[in-house]
Amino acid sequence: MIIRPATATDHDAIWTLLHDVFRAGETYAVDPAITKADALDYWVKASAATYVAEADGRIVGTYYIKTNQPGGGAHICNCGYIVSPAARGQGLARQMCEASQERARAMGYRAMQFNFVLSSNAGAVRLWHKLGFTTVGTIPDAFDHPKVGMVDAYVMHKALAG
Amino acid sequence: MIIRPATATDHDAIWTLLHDVFRAGETYAVDPAITKADALDYWVKASAATYVAEADGRIVGTYYIKTNQPGGGAHICNCGYIVSPAARGQGLARQMCEASQERARAMGYRAMQFNFVLSSNAGAVRLWHKLGFTTVGTIPDAFDHPKVGMVDAYVMHKALAG
Repeated sequence: MIIRPATATDHDAIWTLLHDVFRAGETYAVDPAITKADALDYWVKASAATYVAEADGRIVGTYYIKTNQPGGGAHICNCGYIVSPAARGQGLARQMCEASQERARAMGYRAMQFNFVLSSNAGAVRLWHKLGFTTVGTIPDAFDHPKVGMVDAYVMHKALAG
Repeated sequence: MIIRPATATDHDAIWTLLHDVFRAGETYAVDPAITKADALDYWVKASAATYVAEADGRIVGTYYIKTNQPGGGAHICNCGYIVSPAARGQGLARQMCEASQERARAMGYRAMQFNFVLSSNAGAVRLWHKLGFTTVGTIPDAFDHPKVGMVDAYVMHKALAG
């Protein structure tokens, strides 16, 4: 398994990953009806860097790194991660998150922030805590989950050591 | 003093207000070098509604209402407010915030969230608390303030009663 920068030839494979997650509408605050073009804008064009995880020539995961706030907030990055259904349970989210922290540090970011981690996404919450992220905020009833109704969202933060 | 929806003929006056605040870089996470076109995109085009406060035929304040997160987060709005230097200390920020809550409620939003209230902006923090907002998050060293260095940013939230 290698993690490498995404190229234009990866866009269809990235869209396949985004499509399933965004259409389900259970983890990202994205319009479930988002178009392919808008989804790729969100994941690739609006990001400072986008990576893919490749195993046996197939794209099994992707993540982005983007500046979370411009101006005086530009030293903090935001990242998003997606693992293909077939590749779940093999530690790929952890690998991608660790790789993204190393990469973000090299890009000059001093901290990483997740703006909207749903309380219903227990696996993600547990993993981010394990990887050293702190919950610095809880937005009540922040997300209308299609299966469980209103759930809170956490703001999570980790300083990136120099 | 009246608060009314902004029209295209207000854009120059809105830009004058935005210009001073954004160039100073002390309160909004916006690139201080932002262009007029990008600033108006941020304040007007990306918003669900933009209002101006007018006194004696002059624009003395402005605010926007936008959907804070798409998809499952679309029931929460975000707002931003600017008062002209000449009109400060007269309760205009309070008036605009109260008007925005009423308007947001009428537009169907169920809560209002400020994503990035700087701890150095003590007047704003005090006013939002007075108006019923709760600090639901604190992002450490979130903003590099040109005069005081790194300051925290608060996430503030208020449910809008039906």
